[in-house]
Amino acid sequence: MSKPVDSAVSAVRAYVQHHREAFLDDLAEWLRIPSVSAQPDHAGDVRRSADWLAARLKETGFPVAEIWDTPGAPAVFAEWPSDDAAAPTVLVYGHHDVQPAAREDGWDTDPFEPVIRGNRLHARGAADDKGQVFFHTLGVRAHLAATGRTAPAVHLKLLIEGEEESGSPHFRALVEEHAARLAADAVIVSDTGMWSETTPTVCTGMRGLTDCEIQLNGPDQDIHSGSFGGAVPNPATAAARLVAALHDEHARVAIPGFYDGIQELTPRERELFAELPFDEEQWLRTAKSHATHGEAGHTTLERIWARPTAEVNGIGGGYQGPGGKTIIPSSAMLKLSFRLVAGQDPGHIEKAVRTWVAQQLPAGIRHEITFGGATRPCLTPLDHPALQSLVRAMGRAFEQKILFTREGGSGPAADLQDVLAAPVLFLGISVPSDGWHAPNEKVELDLLLKGVETSAYLWADLAENWRHAG
Amino acid sequence: MSKPVDSAVSAVRAYVQHHREAFLDDLAEWLRIPSVSAQPDHAGDVRRSADWLAARLKETGFPVAEIWDTPGAPAVFAEWPSDDAAAPTVLVYGHHDVQPAAREDGWDTDPFEPVIRGNRLHARGAADDKGQVFFHTLGVRAHLAATGRTAPAVHLKLLIEGEEESGSPHFRALVEEHAARLAADAVIVSDTGMWSETTPTVCTGMRGLTDCEIQLNGPDQDIHSGSFGGAVPNPATAAARLVAALHDEHARVAIPGFYDGIQELTPRERELFAELPFDEEQWLRTAKSHATHGEAGHTTLERIWARPTAEVNGIGGGYQGPGGKTIIPSSAMLKLSFRLVAGQDPGHIEKAVRTWVAQQLPAGIRHEITFGGATRPCLTPLDHPALQSLVRAMGRAFEQKILFTREGGSGPAADLQDVLAAPVLFLGISVPSDGWHAPNEKVELDLLLKGVETSAYLWADLAENWRHAG
Repeated sequence: MSKPVDSAVSAVRAYVQHHREAFLDDLAEWLRIPSVSAQPDHAGDVRRSADWLAARLKETGFPVAEIWDTPGAPAVFAEWPSDDAAAPTVLVYGHHDVQPAAREDGWDTDPFEPVIRGNRLHARGAADDKGQVFFHTLGVRAHLAATGRTAPAVHLKLLIEGEEESGSPHFRALVEEHAARLAADAVIVSDTGMWSETTPTVCTGMRGLTDCEIQLNGPDQDIHSGSFGGAVPNPATAAARLVAALHDEHARVAIPGFYDGIQELTPRERELFAELPFDEEQWLRTAKSHATHGEAGHTTLERIWARPTAEVNGIGGGYQGPGGKTIIPSSAMLKLSFRLVAGQDPGHIEKAVRTWVAQQLPAGIRHEITFGGATRPCLTPLDHPALQSLVRAMGRAFEQKILFTREGGSGPAADLQDVLAAPVLFLGISVPSDGWHAPNEKVELDLLLKGVETSAYLWADLAENWRHAG
Repeated sequence: MSKPVDSAVSAVRAYVQHHREAFLDDLAEWLRIPSVSAQPDHAGDVRRSADWLAARLKETGFPVAEIWDTPGAPAVFAEWPSDDAAAPTVLVYGHHDVQPAAREDGWDTDPFEPVIRGNRLHARGAADDKGQVFFHTLGVRAHLAATGRTAPAVHLKLLIEGEEESGSPHFRALVEEHAARLAADAVIVSDTGMWSETTPTVCTGMRGLTDCEIQLNGPDQDIHSGSFGGAVPNPATAAARLVAALHDEHARVAIPGFYDGIQELTPRERELFAELPFDEEQWLRTAKSHATHGEAGHTTLERIWARPTAEVNGIGGGYQGPGGKTIIPSSAMLKLSFRLVAGQDPGHIEKAVRTWVAQQLPAGIRHEITFGGATRPCLTPLDHPALQSLVRAMGRAFEQKILFTREGGSGPAADLQDVLAAPVLFLGISVPSDGWHAPNEKVELDLLLKGVETSAYLWADLAENWRHAG
């Protein structure tokens, strides 16, 4: 690294060291607020958490820090314009609500009384997501201190929602309502993780999702399998045959048009996945599964990150109680969900599924399909200048090569991507052992401070290397 | 018909006419006893029904009429030896318990207060099965009167069980315990029906049955379909693929060995089925179904009577509540039942199913199969002399050609066939409109008296045309 970079690193690190204790004290104060969005009796705490954060962001220096109400829990919006009008605008996304937690779930200490043991801070929300939101506050101060600026090098916006742990029911509407104020050149999502403590990574995408329920009706009531068995169509059989026909012998989804427009993995992307120290035995233990199974020609990581899926989440029909019942059931039901990857459109998938289902069913089986919500896939192009800045910033903080991952799941980040028409990047420092949603959730203090550092380097690098298009 | 037959018919009919009113009064008295075996508070009534029947059989002339206790409801056994030691022995099977019934289920009158409207006797049990048991009492008296005998022309035994409507849980053990006293050359089951009021028929077989539950386990708990979807086997998919693989593209059961030893329909049997006035549209209404579907190369009647089946009676796995849940379920469950026809052995089928299931499942899916009870198929050979006697006896009573049917269902008759190593014949005069298990159950008085007549002719014909082998 060249000399100027080194001095920037030293300056950032000195600042972070100096403010470490105050930063952790502040975070602990926030973690003491049990902002559990799923529990109505904590509604006041979720609001208190939003108020606390808005006040703290003002103290940090954000000239604008507002509470944005929704029909559910409030979000916090903050804005700190750059003094360089031509700088790009970056929107940081996170959430201030947390999963439920109680001592009796298996916590060693009160989940809402943060405690540092060794080099770990334990509390509900330590990693998911208060810790990862909060490192941006010290990050931007370190950025200013190290660069001698009075305003960030980029136009900085924050949107910290209060209902993520409840499925973000009002998030899309909130983003649409405030689209003008949220407008950004890039979105930085700080609500994900890295490969491991020793392998820092950047996530470059999440899968999309669409799901449906299929109701299949055969006889008008359950009928006797002795009197009628073998001579009329059985809706449970029809349901099963639909599921069986979902995949071909290569475990590829067999719905015509399902792969239309899909962005195939490039050789470079496959190489990058293969660089990760993946241990399939260990992964299987995490998956609590007893074998891998999936699309031929792809590794497990490719299957969960970069390939679309069709999964049965639920199936039911006929008699499910103890013993037997000799009936042909009147009806059966399927719940299917489809994970989507870049290039796939949920609307197109819905149409393809509807057409396919109608063609599969035998005469005498009537059906009804209801689609639930749809979330688009996100994918940050590897050559996007903002991603390159992010990788450089992390590389400085971690002093290691940064590898690339993706997320198999789907999240509200896609709403930001869609409404704001901006690429989404993921800056997360959490690791799998942090125990999201589990007892004794923790954040690694060393990684938390690397997050602070990354945030500090990122804004300067972005401003220097990625000029606003407009 | 020859002159002597005509005079026998006249004598039987005169006797039946003379005793018609007393017979119906007696039957009504029995029908007033609510012998509902499925309802514990009617246990005393079931016993009262057994006592009533045993006493009535003694009055009829049976020298032996006993109550046979079981761990559940009591059965009635009666015996009237022939004075011709070389005559064959015939065991009549029926049941004296009835289905539950309450006025508010939709009955026009009290289900346990028999009423004659037009030419129909309405009461719970009128057709299923008290009426059909009871016609044998007047039948044997008419037989004696018309032939001038003091004992029947055959050794006559009756076994009238008290738990048929509760699934005959103790019947097999009862038959095994009393096998020596029940020993017979043929079993006459009077607990079935005919094609219709205008098409008298003899049933020549019932299908067998074996059923199982298959538990499939994948991940040790429900896992996230985003994090793991597409890369591990889904037990609900495995369950569905098993069901889909049950049948080939001709709707034949695809389990290797399933059709081993099967007794195929002869051209003559297919012709006999085809003689029946079958109306598929009407049958579909009865089946409350919207299309026929079944094994290629067979008619609907062949499919339900003479072909084996594999049906899903229940399927379940994953999330079945409202909305969606993005999981790969930990487990799934299937309930399968197999109807079997002559030549198939339930034990062989169980082995074939177990082998097949184990071969079908992908790595990572563990399974457990539990088989329930097994009932063998029954089939009366068309050329059996006892069947020919039965057809002649019915032909005299109905003065019509007697056609042949089968039953798609399975029943305790198979236990008699197995334990006693005797062929089973079906003498039933009920018709589909009688409303078994339904409100306003009835029996057609004309058909009931044809049952009496058939019973009267049958014993003489059997003794004359079928000598005991020993």
